[in-house]
Amino acid sequence: MARIDIFDTTLRDGEQSPGASMTPPEKLRLAHQLEALGVDIIEAGFPITSEDDFKSVQTIAREVRGPAIAGLARAVHKDIERAAAALEGAHRARLHTFLATSPIHLQHKLKISEAECLDRAAEAVRFARTLVDEVEFSAEDALRSDLPFLARVVEVVIQAGAKIVNIPDTVGYAYPEQIRRTMRTLIETVPGIDGIVLSTHCHNDLGLAVANSLAAIEAGARQVECTINGIGERAGNTALEEIVMALVVRQDAFGHTTGVNTREIHRSSQLLSFLTGINPQPNKAIVGKNAFAHEAGIHQDGVLKERTTYEIMTPELVGVPESQLVLGKHSGRHALDRRYRELGYELTAENLNQAYKLFKLLADQKKSILDEDLISILHHGTMEDVPTRFKLHTLDISCGKRPAEARVKLVDNGEETDLSVSVGDGPIAAAFDAINVLLPFRPTLDDLQIQANPGGVEAVGEVRLRLKVEGKTFTGRGASPDVVVGAVRAYLHAINKATHALSLEGQALARPDLIPGNG
Amino acid sequence: MARIDIFDTTLRDGEQSPGASMTPPEKLRLAHQLEALGVDIIEAGFPITSEDDFKSVQTIAREVRGPAIAGLARAVHKDIERAAAALEGAHRARLHTFLATSPIHLQHKLKISEAECLDRAAEAVRFARTLVDEVEFSAEDALRSDLPFLARVVEVVIQAGAKIVNIPDTVGYAYPEQIRRTMRTLIETVPGIDGIVLSTHCHNDLGLAVANSLAAIEAGARQVECTINGIGERAGNTALEEIVMALVVRQDAFGHTTGVNTREIHRSSQLLSFLTGINPQPNKAIVGKNAFAHEAGIHQDGVLKERTTYEIMTPELVGVPESQLVLGKHSGRHALDRRYRELGYELTAENLNQAYKLFKLLADQKKSILDEDLISILHHGTMEDVPTRFKLHTLDISCGKRPAEARVKLVDNGEETDLSVSVGDGPIAAAFDAINVLLPFRPTLDDLQIQANPGGVEAVGEVRLRLKVEGKTFTGRGASPDVVVGAVRAYLHAINKATHALSLEGQALARPDLIPGNG
Repeated sequence: MARIDIFDTTLRDGEQSPGASMTPPEKLRLAHQLEALGVDIIEAGFPITSEDDFKSVQTIAREVRGPAIAGLARAVHKDIERAAAALEGAHRARLHTFLATSPIHLQHKLKISEAECLDRAAEAVRFARTLVDEVEFSAEDALRSDLPFLARVVEVVIQAGAKIVNIPDTVGYAYPEQIRRTMRTLIETVPGIDGIVLSTHCHNDLGLAVANSLAAIEAGARQVECTINGIGERAGNTALEEIVMALVVRQDAFGHTTGVNTREIHRSSQLLSFLTGINPQPNKAIVGKNAFAHEAGIHQDGVLKERTTYEIMTPELVGVPESQLVLGKHSGRHALDRRYRELGYELTAENLNQAYKLFKLLADQKKSILDEDLISILHHGTMEDVPTRFKLHTLDISCGKRPAEARVKLVDNGEETDLSVSVGDGPIAAAFDAINVLLPFRPTLDDLQIQANPGGVEAVGEVRLRLKVEGKTFTGRGASPDVVVGAVRAYLHAINKATHALSLEGQALARPDLIPGNG
Repeated sequence: MARIDIFDTTLRDGEQSPGASMTPPEKLRLAHQLEALGVDIIEAGFPITSEDDFKSVQTIAREVRGPAIAGLARAVHKDIERAAAALEGAHRARLHTFLATSPIHLQHKLKISEAECLDRAAEAVRFARTLVDEVEFSAEDALRSDLPFLARVVEVVIQAGAKIVNIPDTVGYAYPEQIRRTMRTLIETVPGIDGIVLSTHCHNDLGLAVANSLAAIEAGARQVECTINGIGERAGNTALEEIVMALVVRQDAFGHTTGVNTREIHRSSQLLSFLTGINPQPNKAIVGKNAFAHEAGIHQDGVLKERTTYEIMTPELVGVPESQLVLGKHSGRHALDRRYRELGYELTAENLNQAYKLFKLLADQKKSILDEDLISILHHGTMEDVPTRFKLHTLDISCGKRPAEARVKLVDNGEETDLSVSVGDGPIAAAFDAINVLLPFRPTLDDLQIQANPGGVEAVGEVRLRLKVEGKTFTGRGASPDVVVGAVRAYLHAINKATHALSLEGQALARPDLIPGNG
């Protein structure tokens, strides 16, 4: 019986998936949740790739003390220096460097020979060890590499000082028996492999990520790289919640443990969905909204008679809260605070005040407030992740079976703008057009989703959208019982993010010490 | 090298998942698509459970000629008779009967002994064989059953005439090695098992459904039960697209084939999402919108240099169409017809006329029409799945930072209603409230989702919603550049379905020959 290290890469490999980008404050918030979840390592970013990534890794390294904090670097000096700089101040820092080892990557992407690959891998690890004590090496596309060559790479990086060696199935091509064989061969043939932690990192392109990770563990891997909700490039990475719950539910078969507090799984999943606007499908294992639901009469009947007839784990074990009617317009601040605590949120006095204001506004409009509404309020009310240059002053819409007309006035840095009037295909398009006239740049809308929380037409609608400004993507969200108002809030949220980011860029250009050097 | 039978249960086990219910015409449409996909067996429903299920199985059995059509029945005479009646007229009918075999199900759900279980299973199969030649037996919760007892059950149902025996992991509890062992033991010990097809049916509660199905195949199973998009109770069933593509992409490892035309996978997935309103998550393997997308600079660069660096299959292989700007307001009927053909839709002259009208309307409002818009038009314009009692006559909305007001008039069976005026939290709530006043029943809204197609604020918004009328759930959808108009269309779509279903119920009560008997 071994303890398997959970290496969470939601903030790095997960964030690389289209639409999943997060701002530095959003990443910090998720990192704190990952700490509560009990993961062993948080891969916080890839510092060389952008100023924002650098800053995120730096802030998380300084503020999150439980797990080790990892930063990613290609096997080149400038990347490694940058990652090491970002990790300064971490309670436990891990530098994670990678180089591809498969023929297809060596030939087409890196254009180097096997000998050069060996040299570069060893040199990267040696250099990294001069800056950071805990160094992990990943052999990118390991599962399509020549096995004897892969073994040589693993050997030289161990000699160079790597303490963790990761064998990723980068393209999601492997199957369990293949991973098992690869891991066993490495364990049996590579000198010095006893002293290091062997790691697995799988992608789900053929739906096999969890099974492949389990096969690696069976063969001797002691670290699993994974992401919340299984997000990641293409079909995503091994889902943390699935591999952890497979180890918990089938401990009889696998015999290993992890340090994860399973009761934080649901909340972690919800927070990630909220931050990225990407929801797991209803039938997603463990965290999907139907994962514990039974529709068919026969099954319902079975569950009523005896839960275990159709349930292999309880919803409580992964922290699913029971949704229920809770509060109304006569509820006080104390009741609100208590309910938030029951839902697992400890609010500061200031945040509670703000939430209470929004709660009273909403309670005037709705008879009963659901837990989902409270979470919407909380996210909408206290999620001040950027300075708010633009605020909504006036919004007046007429629409129906005719072109829609919107009349909009904003507050720009405290000053009222002119009234902007626009006609469009629909109320949202007209409102956005009217806003655009008042902005210093021209955003294009990429995606817009509206989700009404259960509870009937009275419910709060949550709007999530994505827009592009000068080639960069920004997400916004807003909540309101009126979808048009919600959409305008979400639009301004993204606009304020964009305004802030563009002003930061000017700043970064003025500070040459923050621009990556050449190493 | 063997040919693996693909048994699609999207219309039965898939449809049992919350929110996935389909009307009989929707099921028929999906069945035709499954035929184009090349599945071997379509499980069309569970005829005893409702009049609608009976009718669906009956219609599909009569109209879909390629695959075998299966109907499900508990191991009791009345279920079996009903299923056999529904299957009459099928080109190839399969009667699928099931009985649980695990101690927990025998004790808590069925309250019978092992001896009774053996008798009942054998009797069900014997009786089914008197009505239908091709009989499949499923041992529900087989993977939590006592293995020697399971072997006895398999033996008696083979003696009784079962031609296919299915070993389901009903609760998604098994892991690959366990399934492999179970299948091998059955193959090695059960007399007569050589002459039948052994089948696997897995659920994804621990993320292992595909790996478990592959393990069963490796051990000798020759039929896989699965669903499009992996829908199904809780975390769903084995995803058809994943198991099929695992067999295709890793044919080098598994060495088996299927009859599936992989180029129909994407279209099948899209149709199911459209019919149920349930979208796969973006990182869903094979059919997720990001399954073939690369965001990170490094990966994009790799893919540009050589596709295979990060791609183990091409998007074309699973039928993903390239999205592109195609048509504008000056495009003619012929161009529209050609583009629909390129997208794989053959329209009748009448449907093309209707689509063309909607296309012209839309082209007046938008500069460029995307493929997604064309599919929206098609679905919205020709999806006349129910008689339309209620139509929209007048819709006039005012809203913004104040309560919304809606003024609505409908056409009810050809006659204009009164004008209904309602005030609400938002424009959609106000419009729905105004409509409710004009209806003979009071619907409650369960869920409402709005998705704007990519292409900016000009795009068509698709609205999907679910409402309950007299305890029954109905889904509706509508498309419009105006979200409020789209929502009203979706609402009336669901209302018309409800009206039709409630009138049918009255009809069924008047026809005693269609009410299940006791057997």
